[in-house]
Amino acid sequence: MRIIESIAEMQQAGEGWRCEGKKIALVPTMGYLHEGHLELMRAIRSHGDVLVTSIFVNPAQFGPGEDFERYPRDLERDTRMANEAGTDIGFIPHVKEMYPEGYQTFVKVTEVTAPLCGRSRPAFFRGVATVVAKLFNIVRPHAAIFGEKDFQQLVTIRRMVQDLNMNIEIIGHPTVREADGLAMSSRNAYLTPEQRRKAVRLNRSLREAQTLVQKGEKTGEAILNKVREVLAEDDDVRIDYVQLCDPSTLQEVTRIAASTLLALAVHVGVARLIDNAILNPSA
Amino acid sequence: MRIIESIAEMQQAGEGWRCEGKKIALVPTMGYLHEGHLELMRAIRSHGDVLVTSIFVNPAQFGPGEDFERYPRDLERDTRMANEAGTDIGFIPHVKEMYPEGYQTFVKVTEVTAPLCGRSRPAFFRGVATVVAKLFNIVRPHAAIFGEKDFQQLVTIRRMVQDLNMNIEIIGHPTVREADGLAMSSRNAYLTPEQRRKAVRLNRSLREAQTLVQKGEKTGEAILNKVREVLAEDDDVRIDYVQLCDPSTLQEVTRIAASTLLALAVHVGVARLIDNAILNPSA
Repeated sequence: MRIIESIAEMQQAGEGWRCEGKKIALVPTMGYLHEGHLELMRAIRSHGDVLVTSIFVNPAQFGPGEDFERYPRDLERDTRMANEAGTDIGFIPHVKEMYPEGYQTFVKVTEVTAPLCGRSRPAFFRGVATVVAKLFNIVRPHAAIFGEKDFQQLVTIRRMVQDLNMNIEIIGHPTVREADGLAMSSRNAYLTPEQRRKAVRLNRSLREAQTLVQKGEKTGEAILNKVREVLAEDDDVRIDYVQLCDPSTLQEVTRIAASTLLALAVHVGVARLIDNAILNPSA
Repeated sequence: MRIIESIAEMQQAGEGWRCEGKKIALVPTMGYLHEGHLELMRAIRSHGDVLVTSIFVNPAQFGPGEDFERYPRDLERDTRMANEAGTDIGFIPHVKEMYPEGYQTFVKVTEVTAPLCGRSRPAFFRGVATVVAKLFNIVRPHAAIFGEKDFQQLVTIRRMVQDLNMNIEIIGHPTVREADGLAMSSRNAYLTPEQRRKAVRLNRSLREAQTLVQKGEKTGEAILNKVREVLAEDDDVRIDYVQLCDPSTLQEVTRIAASTLLALAVHVGVARLIDNAILNPSA
């Protein structure tokens, strides 16, 4: 695996491969890699002749008081893991080159970013869309992959790519989970052993909702109540949101009439964790 | 000249030329071409093997109550003129393909768009940056050219290209003027003969300001007063703004200590006309 830190060098390399007819695949990450990221690399490997993994903790997607400074970082471990998972190029730009003095351009997707995480993290998706647009312009990939754990992020990127005519295939990949069902996340590192045990409630609540729906429940409020009941708020667990929405527009729905996204965000200790599931109404 | 209307066809053509090693040059226009546009085509011709002129009246850059509906259009004349000026490809997309239902992504350059025209046309530069980003992604040019008459637009595009790592050379071209000095603009078509005569005051006021500065005047207010005096408001002529600012940041300056942009916007009848000049302090 070759490490590239310079934007100009990455851009030149990407343009060069393109003109040699090589396909470029990109896995954008904020580092502190886990099995979920490695799965993304393996899944997209076959879509590209060159696999680029970017590692960049993007300050533009953290709000004031959020965890930019303490976000976990381990570049040595990351590069070893990315290499073993088949990455050809580790693109690791510097914050000062990505956002030099005087930086002032942002990409905003307006509607799908409004509900869910957009409510409590108003600058988050603007930061995500902006950095992904930049990475796309720098790496010039034919395809890029994003995990479905960050479902709203995936919908936002798809929308941006379509609206701005970016001509890049966006691949969504199913959430990778720990043995007990907890969705893998770099932020799980924030959990104490006690909180880690409680965090399993997120996925359990989603599965109980799926069971309810399979049994014929179609009323949104009944499903949301079940989820809230399983999440059981206490000193360590605090619900940010639990919501049902259309999986393409992310607009709220109150009845399960079609395939529906159940999405939730929960504070567990200092960690803010998210998870989601698709609910399909029983025939 | 070949006409392309489909976004997919244009994108495929652009990518194809790139990989054949051909350089692509772009002149983005809203049509109703005049000598100023033709000058841009001739000036950038040598920068590209393929010259693309886009013609698209962009609804996203018109505010409510502005002149989107009545903006002058003459596609037959435009294609003939573009062809004669050396255009290879006339890219003429449809509004419904550029902004399909559900469209919701915008590029916003925050600081350089705030003063001058940004004050009276708050959505204008968001619309400009968005459509230019789209055109760049569709046409994939190596270079694009913009007239200096729209100086703030040029600064905005340069900033966007730099911030979003677009890797496109942005060329600014000096304003092309009528014999009496009026800057060429499609909106000059709105003027009655009487208003057309009065419109010459815009350029005259700029030249008088330059003369003042050459004579040693450095005080901003004295220069602005001279400009306002020459513009002489009456029933047909109403000043939107007259301002002095730094040509890179567009921040207001009150003394001519270095190269300074003098920019103005004036309503002449139903037309809103803009013009500008660079003032260089005498040695």
